[in-house]
Parts: sequence; C-alpha cells; structure tokens
Amino acid sequence: MNDVARHAGVGLKTVSRVVNGEPRVSSAMVQRVRQAIEDLGFRRHEGARLLRRGRTACVGLVLEDVADPFSSALTRAVESEAWANGFLLLTGSSGEDAVQERELTLAFCAGRVDGVVVVPAGDDHRYLAPEIEAGVAAVFADRPAGRIEADAVLVDNTGGARLGVGHLLEQGHRRIGHIGDAEGIFTAGERQRGYREALEAAEVPYDPSLVARGPVEQEFIRHALDRMLAGPEPVTAVFTGNNRATVAVIRDLATRERRPALVGFDDFELADMLSPAVTVVAQDAAVLGRTAAQVLFQRLGGDVSSARTIELQTRLIPRGSGEIPA
Amino acid sequence: MNDVARHAGVGLKTVSRVVNGEPRVSSAMVQRVRQAIEDLGFRRHEGARLLRRGRTACVGLVLEDVADPFSSALTRAVESEAWANGFLLLTGSSGEDAVQERELTLAFCAGRVDGVVVVPAGDDHRYLAPEIEAGVAAVFADRPAGRIEADAVLVDNTGGARLGVGHLLEQGHRRIGHIGDAEGIFTAGERQRGYREALEAAEVPYDPSLVARGPVEQEFIRHALDRMLAGPEPVTAVFTGNNRATVAVIRDLATRERRPALVGFDDFELADMLSPAVTVVAQDAAVLGRTAAQVLFQRLGGDVSSARTIELQTRLIPRGSGEIPA
Repeated sequence: MNDVARHAGVGLKTVSRVVNGEPRVSSAMVQRVRQAIEDLGFRRHEGARLLRRGRTACVGLVLEDVADPFSSALTRAVESEAWANGFLLLTGSSGEDAVQERELTLAFCAGRVDGVVVVPAGDDHRYLAPEIEAGVAAVFADRPAGRIEADAVLVDNTGGARLGVGHLLEQGHRRIGHIGDAEGIFTAGERQRGYREALEAAEVPYDPSLVARGPVEQEFIRHALDRMLAGPEPVTAVFTGNNRATVAVIRDLATRERRPALVGFDDFELADMLSPAVTVVAQDAAVLGRTAAQVLFQRLGGDVSSARTIELQTRLIPRGSGEIPA
Repeated sequence: MNDVARHAGVGLKTVSRVVNGEPRVSSAMVQRVRQAIEDLGFRRHEGARLLRRGRTACVGLVLEDVADPFSSALTRAVESEAWANGFLLLTGSSGEDAVQERELTLAFCAGRVDGVVVVPAGDDHRYLAPEIEAGVAAVFADRPAGRIEADAVLVDNTGGARLGVGHLLEQGHRRIGHIGDAEGIFTAGERQRGYREALEAAEVPYDPSLVARGPVEQEFIRHALDRMLAGPEPVTAVFTGNNRATVAVIRDLATRERRPALVGFDDFELADMLSPAVTVVAQDAAVLGRTAAQVLFQRLGGDVSSARTIELQTRLIPRGSGEIPA
C-alpha cells in the first residue's frame, strides 16, 4: 500500500479507502490509485484482500507427506506462526513429486494465499517467479529453491552427516555403510556428501559399494544390508540418511544375528525405547517450520531485503546403537 | 441455486447469470435474485464462489493436533479425497480446546470453504447451524456433533475397549487398571464404558480406584501407576485409552521391576519392535478420514438424505504385552 501511495502520489489513507471501497473518494482519485495498483502488478492480490476483509487471510504449506512425523511437526509449527499472525493455513502433500508440488503451489497462489512455505520436491521453481513478482511471498524449507532466488531455511545436512559418521569412526569403525533416500533428493545428496567427507577426513577410503540410495522400502533395505554384511569385509556400522530408513534398517536387523552399529539422521518417537536405543543426529522440524514461517511473515510485513538462506544446526544424541564398538 | 430460483420465481439459468455477473439480465431480475439470496441467507457463500470461479474450491479440516500421528494419518486421507474431488484442503488444530475449534471452523466457513470435516473438541455445535443452513456441508469425525444433527463417522470405541479388556480377562487377569484421556473427551468416555462393560460381563467388580483419567503427562501416568501397583492387591494388567497414554505407560514401566500386562487402544509406529511388543486395539485413522471425506463429498454432490452415523470397527493385534499371564 505504501508503494501504491507513492506511485499514485496520494496519501496512504486514500489508497486504503479506494481498496476497501469506502465512500468519500473522488472517481479521479479512484482511477489514479487503481492505475498505480495496475502498474505495480498488484492485481494478483485482489482475491486475498477480499478474503482478508471478510475475516482472515491464508498462507499455504506444501510438504512431502503430511502423515510423515517430520512433516507433521513442521506443519504444527507453521500453523502456530500463521495463527499468531492472523492467517489460516492451507496444506498439501506433494508425495515427493515435482509436478504435484508445482500444481499444488500454483493452486494455492491462484487468488488464495498471500504466501507459501514450500518443502520442494522438484529442483526448478521458475514457475513461481510470476507469483513472487505479483507479490506472493515464498519461503523454501528443508531444501532450497531451484533456478530462482528465494528465501530458504535449511538444515546443515552435510555437517550433521559428518557428525554422525565421525562418531562411528571414533568407535573404531572403518567399514561403514550408508543407506539413504533416492537420487535427486537434495537432503539425501547433502548427507551422502557429509558421509564421504567424514571418511576422507579420517583417511578411510570411500567405497561406493557400501552406499545404497533408493526408495525406502523394506525390500530395498534388505538387499542393501545383504550386500553390505556379506563378503570378507562386511560393514561393522551403518549410517542411515533419514528416519524411515533407520526404522527399516532396525526392522531388518531384528531378523539377523549380526548387529552392526547404527547412527540415523533424524530423531524419531521411541528411538530411546528400542533395544539397543538408537543413536541419532537430530534435526528439529518444529524449529525449521517456525523459522520458515517467521521469514514468510517478515516478508509479508514488508521486508524487501535480498533473499537469504538460514542454516540450522543438528546435534548428536548417543543412545547405544552408535556406541557398539567395531 | 435451486432454492434461490424457486424463491425468486425465476429459472435456474437466470440465477446463474446473476450470480456470475453475466450481461443480458434486467436490473429488476438482478434485484429479485439478490433479494432471494439475501432472504435465504446465502451471503456467506459469496467468497467461496468467487474462489471457485478462480480455480478450485476448498474444504476445511479441524483436528485435535496435526502433529499427532492419528491426526496426520487422518489428514492425509482427507487430503487425498479432497484432491480426487478437485478441492484444496485447509487444516487447523484445535488443541483440544472447544473455543479454538469453533473459531477455526467458523473462520473456515467465512467465505472460504464449501465443507468442513471436524474432529470436535467441544460438545455444543449449534454455532455451525447457520453455516449448515447456508449450505456448508459438515461431517464430524472420530467424535459426534453436540446439540445439532450432523453426519458423523466414528469408531466403535466401546466395542474396541471391550475387546482389549476381554483379552486381558482371558489371560486370567482380574485386577486390571485403566488409564485414559481427561474427562469430557467423548472417545475416552466411551472407552472407559467398554472397560467397565467387559469387567461386568466377566463378573469382575468395577473398582473406580483402578481408573485414572487425566492429561497424558508423564507425571500423571507415574502417579496413576504408583497407586495401581501399590497395596496388597496391585493390578496385574493395564488397559490404556490411547496411544499417547500407552507410550507414557511403557516409558514409566521401563523404570520399574514389576511388569503388568498391557493392552493399548490405538496402534502406533514401532509397537511391534518394543520389548515386549505391544498388544493393541487398532483403529484405522486413514479409513476414518477417507470415510468422513467421502460423506462430505456425497453431501456436496447433492445428497440431502437425513444425517447419518457410520461406526467403524476396531481389531485386536496380540503382540506380547497383552499375553503376559496374571
């Protein structure tokens, strides 16, 4: 509204009167303000403003899968921030599909939301550029935007993986397997990089045959462990790249005699109650969601500084499975 | 639109033209249709229609807490149904607070949604009556509506509790404690009723001192178990009323020597991996969400039959903790 007032050369009150359709504004003035709104490309916001006048406005949240504990903790945090700012929250799961992510995000934008927090599935977000130019605020969470400049709140995945793998190296392990999410998933790539960096820092050669990345399905995990635990030089430890992989590995190991050490990226409910209790590199989904939402509302509050990336730290929680010696 | 056409004494096409602001309608006709809309109290829908014309429409989902696994599985199912019907989903957590539930539901209704699925926190939903009369579809999930007639999809809580407690009685237990959610929560009351009915059917006297209902906090659980496990006639088994209580009881029992048998209402991730594995009475949150959403879209599709209640069955999953003998 400040921009419109400046552009039209009128006071802020006049803009507000025109926008809210109040009386006592000359039609010339209405015309001038409308032209300024038009010039500045604020048209897209009409829908949102209509809603806000009715009651409250909306922001959207695009996730991988709302039923995943990481996503649902993130959702709860974004929801709290949204409400604190007087906004309702639209949510949707991309199912780790880039097309679904785009359709959902654009559907949110189409006259419905003032801003979006996106946990992206894809790596090309140029589709959002017209929306952002039209005034929709966009913040990326957990993974960065691709091919556009946009705010992002990330976790130090590489550092976290170094922490976890470094911990296994400290227990004397030299043959450490890594099971992570499929190729193309940003966080999974970063964690694999941290795994490799930790090995190289300890002068342990990186062996690609000890790395398995793919869909986290029990069958995939079984094959990966079969391979890693076979042969003359089996792994003595495993580093898993996310909580679903960790749980799948635990389920599989329950059927085997050999018990390699295990450190998982991501904490999860009851990790401390299993036997052995599971050592993890914990990231805080609630802090991630809250921070992303805070950046979003700073933007909606008028912050026009250049796009920034915030990186959150992880922490190692030793519980038993990661302290099994080599 | 049919109602408006009838009330205004005009054709359906005329109503559609007026509503969509199309030309070729006399101002007298516009006046007549608008008056009918006014008379019938359809004003609230203006916003929703505006949105729908833009892209897609919305439905809302009010939950206890989206971060709870039960709620997030339910959300995922409602989301899938919504998308299959071309609707986006607004979600929000009531935090088990009746005022929050009402504010959220009404905010969703205020020009924004065509329908709502509500997991109610309160027991008086008369606030929704004007919205329902104005055409918003409302389906209650997990708990019924209070003081209005509305569709509800529930779980057979009483039957499920009878199943779980009956299983403990079959193992020879006679002193069975019950720990459940606070007073005033519909499902918790129903489950306590099932607990009592199972005891009475087995001619085991109901002893209120073996029942603890309150906020599921570790401290509350500890006190409850202290009491139940003390004295000359301690409990030999515990029936918990929801997954949070079950997990809290397991955490607490890990610090004690005595190990009563345990059956929990609600399944949960890793229940089968604990030691002993946890016997549960499982309800299916995804089926609950899907069924509620299906009823909602039947209503939005024009089903005007009288309000119905659908009750879903539970099933017992024996895993070890519920088979510890008395």
